[in-house]
Amino acid sequence: MTQKILVLPGDGIGPEITAQASRILAACQARGLDVEIEEGLLGGGAYDAHGEPLPAETLEKARAARGILLGAVGGPKWDTIEDLAKRPEKGLLGLRKELGLFGNLRPAITYPQLAEASSLKRELVAGLDIMIVRELTGGIYFGQPRGIEERDGQRVGFNTYVYSESEIERIGRVAFELAQKRGRKLCSVDKANVLEATILWREVMERLAPEYPDVELSHMYVDNAAMQLVREPKQFDVVVTGNMFGDILSDAAAMLTGSIGMLPSASLNESGQGMYEPCHGSAPDIAGQNVANPLATILSVAMMLRYSLDAPALAAQIEEAVGKVLDEGLRTADIASEGTRTVSTSEMGDAVLAAF
Amino acid sequence: MTQKILVLPGDGIGPEITAQASRILAACQARGLDVEIEEGLLGGGAYDAHGEPLPAETLEKARAARGILLGAVGGPKWDTIEDLAKRPEKGLLGLRKELGLFGNLRPAITYPQLAEASSLKRELVAGLDIMIVRELTGGIYFGQPRGIEERDGQRVGFNTYVYSESEIERIGRVAFELAQKRGRKLCSVDKANVLEATILWREVMERLAPEYPDVELSHMYVDNAAMQLVREPKQFDVVVTGNMFGDILSDAAAMLTGSIGMLPSASLNESGQGMYEPCHGSAPDIAGQNVANPLATILSVAMMLRYSLDAPALAAQIEEAVGKVLDEGLRTADIASEGTRTVSTSEMGDAVLAAF
Ligand SMILES: CC(C)[C@H](C(=O)O)[C@@H](O)C(=O)O
Ligand SMILES: CC(C)[C@H](C(=O)O)[C@@H](O)C(=O)O
Repeated sequence: MTQKILVLPGDGIGPEITAQASRILAACQARGLDVEIEEGLLGGGAYDAHGEPLPAETLEKARAARGILLGAVGGPKWDTIEDLAKRPEKGLLGLRKELGLFGNLRPAITYPQLAEASSLKRELVAGLDIMIVRELTGGIYFGQPRGIEERDGQRVGFNTYVYSESEIERIGRVAFELAQKRGRKLCSVDKANVLEATILWREVMERLAPEYPDVELSHMYVDNAAMQLVREPKQFDVVVTGNMFGDILSDAAAMLTGSIGMLPSASLNESGQGMYEPCHGSAPDIAGQNVANPLATILSVAMMLRYSLDAPALAAQIEEAVGKVLDEGLRTADIASEGTRTVSTSEMGDAVLAAF
Repeated sequence: MTQKILVLPGDGIGPEITAQASRILAACQARGLDVEIEEGLLGGGAYDAHGEPLPAETLEKARAARGILLGAVGGPKWDTIEDLAKRPEKGLLGLRKELGLFGNLRPAITYPQLAEASSLKRELVAGLDIMIVRELTGGIYFGQPRGIEERDGQRVGFNTYVYSESEIERIGRVAFELAQKRGRKLCSVDKANVLEATILWREVMERLAPEYPDVELSHMYVDNAAMQLVREPKQFDVVVTGNMFGDILSDAAAMLTGSIGMLPSASLNESGQGMYEPCHGSAPDIAGQNVANPLATILSVAMMLRYSLDAPALAAQIEEAVGKVLDEGLRTADIASEGTRTVSTSEMGDAVLAAF
């Protein structure tokens, strides 16, 4: 049965990098992948066109798609929109919520060809392979009540950090199952010495643990986790945490690989439908210059093939093609170093296609 | 007028490291510092003795003190106390709240003698000198309502992230003033693209900015800040942020200096009364072995002299003594490296005293 894929280029460098990833998708079709590809608007561009960061039409297409490939959303142009609900980021958050994409997989991998690019000492990051599992549709980014209101003669801003047992259990299972397929170590990150919401989090993780006797579960406070990531990242295998802590820690982890332009991510719901996007942002400063790194987006296609389209062989072929291109010394500006050849966004796309 | 100082050794390595810092304090008395020194219980030890992590007697002594020197609190022994309000950390949080110690200054400095100890490449951290200003008595660590309760047939854990304009303004002014005395750059960290509480935060910082025209104010989302700290920490001068983001970022920043055993902190209220403590924790794994690094605690005494006791000359003498000892190649185990001499906690104290 033909499955649908929705490409959402988004803002900033989004259109350039998804253009290259779409070429790879087309090449997969040529190799027999039975998909139908559509495009849609999300984020700032959608707001400009329709006054909404997540237009109804996009949501409808997204619901019908098995996999969604997103570039990136947001930029200074829309940072001043008064109504927070209309900002580009809210389009992304809305899509996650509407599709129930609660399971965010954020690999932090150091590519052997790029270990030098890390700000950390080489020995600390060479061979690094962490999977951060971030809960994506709950926690403080979605909690109610929220707002800014007048209390006792002054304004007060408030948000609610909230998790239910079932939300925690659901993401916990994703993480335990991933750990079983990897190094069998799961570190759950919380602030259970201070926050009640994370006491419940820890409790549920503990309750699940006996069902996964082959996985070693540990717990770490978020402040310590931020330190340990910097100090000795290789101590981690799978990390599971809530939406906000996951946002912060996964970005820090991605950056310390030195390969943030290389890192894909997946956001999955219970039926395996997923949204795939690079870990990096919309980089408005370099948008439209054909210099952005398309590899994270191309590798997001590989993740989509693996997690939503059940095409692991094609996924591996894409990953190998990327490896070959790196071996040949081709680099976009963000990962360039001495002795490598700096290429443009589209040249990088050409090279991956040629190696595919 | 004789001022009072309260020493709270706390748990884990706390007693060992405060013992060395107390020797320095005594040496300051001998040089004319007019203070009266008391001790008190806080944290796990206080819970064991009185069933409360912050006994009334300690709070009373703390109110009377101009400066409080804290070792560290907490440890696995108390992590299983059912009632969160009785945990060691709550003693610390309670003391901060009761004394109104809203302004937490967390320097992240790389000592030239220790630049190699960082997990980051030397050139990225050599000369690093950031000041993170963390709001310490508000935000989600204190917000109401909070708890775990049954809703629709399952348990739900919740906390409230809340800031009022006056709370934000107060910490903003501390940060702007510090920036004026330093590199004149202030970066305010929030998640204003998602959280209303931090939209108000950003607004208040913007409102204050014209009063400090010599300071360049910028804003950064917390996920990006976590990345930028790892990527290029020297881009920062003063960073100001809320309680939770500050907890995470200041620990990450401390760790990336490679000198976390060296970093003091100050928590101040509006009258200049302050609590001073090392950035590191209670390290229960090495407690009682006379191997912990007392320098962060000794340097916390220097911060106390500078910020609460108006004795900057003595403060500088302590800092110089620490520098001399490092120059001589003395190191506790946590900062030891090839070619240096590893000493114990008390030997390090001896050496600083001798150099003072
Ligand atoms: C754009 C923003 C809302 C989003 C988030 O914080 O979830 C982004 O930072 C991410 O990590 O995907
Ligand atoms: C012990 C804990 C409550 C405390 C905090 O999170 O505030 C600590 O991590 C700190 O940073 O001083």
